[in-house]
Amino acid sequence: MNKSISDNGETVAKGSICGYDSLDQLLSANLKPELYQEVSRILLGSNCGRPLEHIVIPASAKDLSSKHDFDLQAFSFSADKEQMRKPRVVRVGLIQNSIALPTTAPFLDQTRGIHNKLKPIIEAAGVAGVNILCLQEAWTMPFAFCTREKKWCEFAEPVDGESTKFLQELAKKYNMVIVNPILERDMDHGEVLWNTAVIIGNNGNIIGKHRKNHIPRVGDFNESTYYMEGDTGHPVFETTPSSNWLAFGLNGAEIVFNPSATVGELSEPMWPIEARNAAIANSYFVGSINRVGTEVFPNAFTSGDGKPQHNDFGHFYGSSHFSAPDASCTPSLSRYRDGLLISDMDLNLCRQYKDKWGFRMTARYEVYADLLAKYLKPDFKPQVVSDPMLHKNSS
Amino acid sequence: MNKSISDNGETVAKGSICGYDSLDQLLSANLKPELYQEVSRILLGSNCGRPLEHIVIPASAKDLSSKHDFDLQAFSFSADKEQMRKPRVVRVGLIQNSIALPTTAPFLDQTRGIHNKLKPIIEAAGVAGVNILCLQEAWTMPFAFCTREKKWCEFAEPVDGESTKFLQELAKKYNMVIVNPILERDMDHGEVLWNTAVIIGNNGNIIGKHRKNHIPRVGDFNESTYYMEGDTGHPVFETTPSSNWLAFGLNGAEIVFNPSATVGELSEPMWPIEARNAAIANSYFVGSINRVGTEVFPNAFTSGDGKPQHNDFGHFYGSSHFSAPDASCTPSLSRYRDGLLISDMDLNLCRQYKDKWGFRMTARYEVYADLLAKYLKPDFKPQVVSDPMLHKNSS
Repeated sequence: MNKSISDNGETVAKGSICGYDSLDQLLSANLKPELYQEVSRILLGSNCGRPLEHIVIPASAKDLSSKHDFDLQAFSFSADKEQMRKPRVVRVGLIQNSIALPTTAPFLDQTRGIHNKLKPIIEAAGVAGVNILCLQEAWTMPFAFCTREKKWCEFAEPVDGESTKFLQELAKKYNMVIVNPILERDMDHGEVLWNTAVIIGNNGNIIGKHRKNHIPRVGDFNESTYYMEGDTGHPVFETTPSSNWLAFGLNGAEIVFNPSATVGELSEPMWPIEARNAAIANSYFVGSINRVGTEVFPNAFTSGDGKPQHNDFGHFYGSSHFSAPDASCTPSLSRYRDGLLISDMDLNLCRQYKDKWGFRMTARYEVYADLLAKYLKPDFKPQVVSDPMLHKNSS
Repeated sequence: MNKSISDNGETVAKGSICGYDSLDQLLSANLKPELYQEVSRILLGSNCGRPLEHIVIPASAKDLSSKHDFDLQAFSFSADKEQMRKPRVVRVGLIQNSIALPTTAPFLDQTRGIHNKLKPIIEAAGVAGVNILCLQEAWTMPFAFCTREKKWCEFAEPVDGESTKFLQELAKKYNMVIVNPILERDMDHGEVLWNTAVIIGNNGNIIGKHRKNHIPRVGDFNESTYYMEGDTGHPVFETTPSSNWLAFGLNGAEIVFNPSATVGELSEPMWPIEARNAAIANSYFVGSINRVGTEVFPNAFTSGDGKPQHNDFGHFYGSSHFSAPDASCTPSLSRYRDGLLISDMDLNLCRQYKDKWGFRMTARYEVYADLLAKYLKPDFKPQVVSDPMLHKNSS
């Protein structure tokens, strides 16, 4: 059974609907064990034919979780034993969190408040032996792009700014690669902004960066007034014990992190589908991270969709989780509380699934390269077959 | 609440595990209504902000369902009202079924047995006013490709063969477009075989065909010894009131049918993920059909994966369902019984979601056309950024 190992798993967070903390917790608490097992088999899948296993977390990490009131869960994706390669198990962590102070607080206090809030969570990851840790999108600030007010640009930091330095120390201390998604101020290109994941190596060094490629144009997600489509392609980072789906796959990624900020009304049934599909179709692991809580801004704003002006984006529903190439996934973290999700994953599973399903053999990339090239031309005509009777009838 | 309107919804089919007929039925029967509603909100999504509505089925169709013991469920996907276009509601049906006779029966009896079994189900669709109906993959025969025995090729029929003729009459009688997925014997090309969906217009005419593009190479799915990769591209059929995800979308499809044959052990947690992701990412409806039951073959076969020889493919788990561009989906049909799933869908929802999410604006097709073109070259080098410290450490 996929059961949370959190000490606090049973507690119901403030603000929860129907008194539940996550979908998995609702189901496991309200279904008989044999029914829950069957539901899990379909919803969460199975890993190498078995339910996902949980892993033991050191007491010191559990203590941090109790003391600082964050969700802590940990699982393990295994792979079959191979003869020519040893298992390549990495321990990966995702952190989701709410902001620390109201959006009206001084900006520096807000960022440092988040630093202070995250420190024990990152330490829990460190003492639990996490090898690669990913934080949420624009973790240093409220997700203020909805407002279209330019004052929030002040939160942007260069790749080697204060927040990166804060993480570099922790990366070094815990021998842990950290993926650091920030609003980037590009000092080399006229101080323009990007939405950037900085990759910090386990020695505290900056390995490189990836800039967000697809900028949403939906509802309150008015991000394209802040930053441009990324120009870094789809690099895959080769790190010590080691993010747009197909392209990262083609470049050989084995873990793709998707640090997101997304709200319930818009995407809650959709978000896990996209991630799991990507993991399956590209034979890699996906770590999906969403922030938590409701962030209230001082000035009202509109979405441009006729909804009356409002001061918050809606509820960021957390629910961070991992998806695996064999269609299994972990239960999700809390919808309401900060949290750290840890998972061991044997990266050998990626190639095993490439070999098993052979999607790269059956993918017929040449058909799609050809179609996309044609589609991009202004005179593209879609391949449509009309029923001749249809036009006969209408004449 | 997404509730089945089937008269037989509560009955537990023979052979079911834990006494349940489908995931949705298990959840609705075992959770308190308010919890079931919350679980449905996340798992099934909501349509235009509301739970999916069910539609009223004529008594004559219900009678057929009782008399012939097949699952019958019906739902409605709505869209917002527009000023410049009227709603374009089509009623779409999916049929899943088990085979009629043992695989050892004379072949003609087997096919005609399936014809006889399907006739009342198709008639139920007809009297319920279905506009477009899709049958399951290779519906005229057992899914015998696992055996790699060539005798099953005898089930192949030309595009205008007996099974098509059988459906043409029903299409005309009920003014219904029928998608007819058969094993095709191509009389114009040396009698080679294809896995083909024949599109029959509501006047009983053959509009065209689509041949399966991606042939699985996994486990018992040994289909590539029977037929080749399709050569028909991704045509979209313009039919009276109206199947590879991106390409059909680029060609403007508003409904894509995915007649499949897939078994629980291999794909049950995966199959609905793929379909729902495609519907969301491409802003169209998807109708997913899977056959039902366990088909036992006279001669044992192996998968070539070390599993001892066996005489059946495993359980085809049915669970046919519709997915919509707004991330909502219907509950699934039974895992055990034949079934007809009907859904109204306002096709206007497709463009509304293209406008809302703007995935075609943010998709950056040029990046992927370029990457795929490069990837196809023998000298392609993936974009990998290595931690310099990594190689320093290892030297």
